[in-house]
Amino acid sequence: MIKFITASDSFKESLSAKAACQAMTDGIKRVFPEAEVIQVPMADGGEGTVDAILSCIPGEKVEKMVTGPDGRRLLASYGLINDGECAVIETAAASGLGLLAKKGRDPMTATTFGTGELLLDALKRGVKKIIVGLGGSATNDGGAGLAQALGVRFLDKNGQELPFGGGSLDQLARIDASGLAPRLKEVEIILASDVTNPLTGLNGASAVFGPQKGADKEMVQKLDASLHHYAAVIKEQVGKDVENVPGSGAAGGLGAGFLAFSKCQMKAGAQIVIEESHLAEKMRDADYVFTGEGGIDFQTKFGKTPYAVAQVAKKLGIPVFALAGQVGDGIDSLYEAGFTGIFGILPGICSLPEALAGGGGNLARTSENVARVIKAARVNLQ
Amino acid sequence: MIKFITASDSFKESLSAKAACQAMTDGIKRVFPEAEVIQVPMADGGEGTVDAILSCIPGEKVEKMVTGPDGRRLLASYGLINDGECAVIETAAASGLGLLAKKGRDPMTATTFGTGELLLDALKRGVKKIIVGLGGSATNDGGAGLAQALGVRFLDKNGQELPFGGGSLDQLARIDASGLAPRLKEVEIILASDVTNPLTGLNGASAVFGPQKGADKEMVQKLDASLHHYAAVIKEQVGKDVENVPGSGAAGGLGAGFLAFSKCQMKAGAQIVIEESHLAEKMRDADYVFTGEGGIDFQTKFGKTPYAVAQVAKKLGIPVFALAGQVGDGIDSLYEAGFTGIFGILPGICSLPEALAGGGGNLARTSENVARVIKAARVNLQ
Repeated sequence: MIKFITASDSFKESLSAKAACQAMTDGIKRVFPEAEVIQVPMADGGEGTVDAILSCIPGEKVEKMVTGPDGRRLLASYGLINDGECAVIETAAASGLGLLAKKGRDPMTATTFGTGELLLDALKRGVKKIIVGLGGSATNDGGAGLAQALGVRFLDKNGQELPFGGGSLDQLARIDASGLAPRLKEVEIILASDVTNPLTGLNGASAVFGPQKGADKEMVQKLDASLHHYAAVIKEQVGKDVENVPGSGAAGGLGAGFLAFSKCQMKAGAQIVIEESHLAEKMRDADYVFTGEGGIDFQTKFGKTPYAVAQVAKKLGIPVFALAGQVGDGIDSLYEAGFTGIFGILPGICSLPEALAGGGGNLARTSENVARVIKAARVNLQ
Repeated sequence: MIKFITASDSFKESLSAKAACQAMTDGIKRVFPEAEVIQVPMADGGEGTVDAILSCIPGEKVEKMVTGPDGRRLLASYGLINDGECAVIETAAASGLGLLAKKGRDPMTATTFGTGELLLDALKRGVKKIIVGLGGSATNDGGAGLAQALGVRFLDKNGQELPFGGGSLDQLARIDASGLAPRLKEVEIILASDVTNPLTGLNGASAVFGPQKGADKEMVQKLDASLHHYAAVIKEQVGKDVENVPGSGAAGGLGAGFLAFSKCQMKAGAQIVIEESHLAEKMRDADYVFTGEGGIDFQTKFGKTPYAVAQVAKKLGIPVFALAGQVGDGIDSLYEAGFTGIFGILPGICSLPEALAGGGGNLARTSENVARVIKAARVNLQ
């Protein structure tokens, strides 16, 4: 029997990863109704990681009232898998840019406190492993809010606790980590991040990601200086040099916060999803793999989901086809990187809203036609 | 050895049929450098038939000064193939809408005289067969101009020769065919037309095609009445009833003119190109066929080139893949009609000018990726 794997990322603003895998499956089934098609929705560590993992690994969602990026309370959720042994937390769930109206964005005061509250909740439940997706944050606080929620105190020279947000970190004089949740040391923390930026400098959190969170030029300079000061105090008082570690600049410096106050490992988000979903195991006896994402171009090979999927398939010698709404420049280099074939799914000239609305149908149609070629080529040799 | 046929129509305003076949070949060769790829450019009887036939059958172009649709002299050309035994003439070459500026269009006076002159020239060269493509004419003269060029006289009640154009045919009193070129009876004439409209009436030449040639409502009525009178006189004096014959309304009634004054056969343009290019013969031992056109939708099965190509492939049991810039509605019915797979070639959202300019690259890229699927699926079974 012929076996397919559909392991797609989401098609942004058009299809969730689950819906994309379903559309691919629908198309394949029209050609091979008897085929085994296993859906393994993927994500790359940004928003959607929890859903992607929960959709392919049995688990549950936990809801918790937490402090949002702007200080207001909101209901956030995270995932528990493997019989409650592993928590999957998205930074975006409690500290995400998507939680704020555009005019409510303020990277000077936005905090990751809510993400810390989710971690604390998971620790209380006795998890042994916590996966944190670092994408989509509204913050630029170096993970100070996270640390505060976990029991760390950031004090100014007068011994006053600092207010939320990266904008105040230049006032940091003393770090009191004596109240840090003790269980933090016992759990394995894995950070899902596709970002290798350092905490500060030209490639740092403030300069690169600050503007998309609402920082103007002046704010970027102030935030960068604050994080630089923050890193210096951490180095002196915590004994960890986090300023130039690759990835410490992820999620507005949340990476640095984790590095300073926890034992953590940073992995590409797609890699984590692949591991936790046991993609390689499911793929082992498959004949063909379908993957996809909204856009595919030469940048795909810098750790995006379809690339990670292709690497697994390549290792197993299985052909992998990538489908995308937008096929960009430089895809020739992707063939060498393991992609067997790459197809755009648009049927013709259309507007962006039409393309987004038609995503499911277009993805199913293109998957069907790739399957049709497969069927014709297989039969042809008999 | 693996063998491919690329048998594409043109991609309108983007790629000639020859360029389209070359782009498909380029894509295929990137995957199967050793493959035999035979290019058989196709056309469906409109403008491009001569080039399509000349590009796949050894022959030459003949140039001749003739009378254009507006009475002005112009240099037109036609093709000679099979060692001069067969002429291939496009109506558009001497009587085409494309020869006139928009404001120069006048279906009341436009004449097919020039097309008749090309036929006469071919007859003088001793051809045994003449293929005439009926697409793209600027005329609505019922083929009267053609007949005049071939020696027929159309006289009013005073014995005066009628002026050019369908607008005068209501004055027709007598047809004098005594001067008709005698060799006309000895040659096989094949009309390439995808049109089954009758000469007159609601589905007739004037009503359906008049407006795109510049006729307003009043002109359409006048032209339709004139062609009705013309058909009545032909019936009475030539003894042929051409008014309701399917296809007599093609090219502004040029079909009717041929039916009245010559022995001719009407065939779908794509069919003629397929026969003259010996497509079936070339396809016989091929493994895969690639075809295409600018747009593919449910209408494709009403005689368009890719459909005709698919029919030949289907009869031979060879998979055929269709590629198009615009994949429209209802393509599911095309799978049943013989198409193995159908792919849009656009890489993503783009403007029409971008799509047209990128046609060659997009077609090659998509062909390459279809070939990649073929390669993967073939290898997979070994």
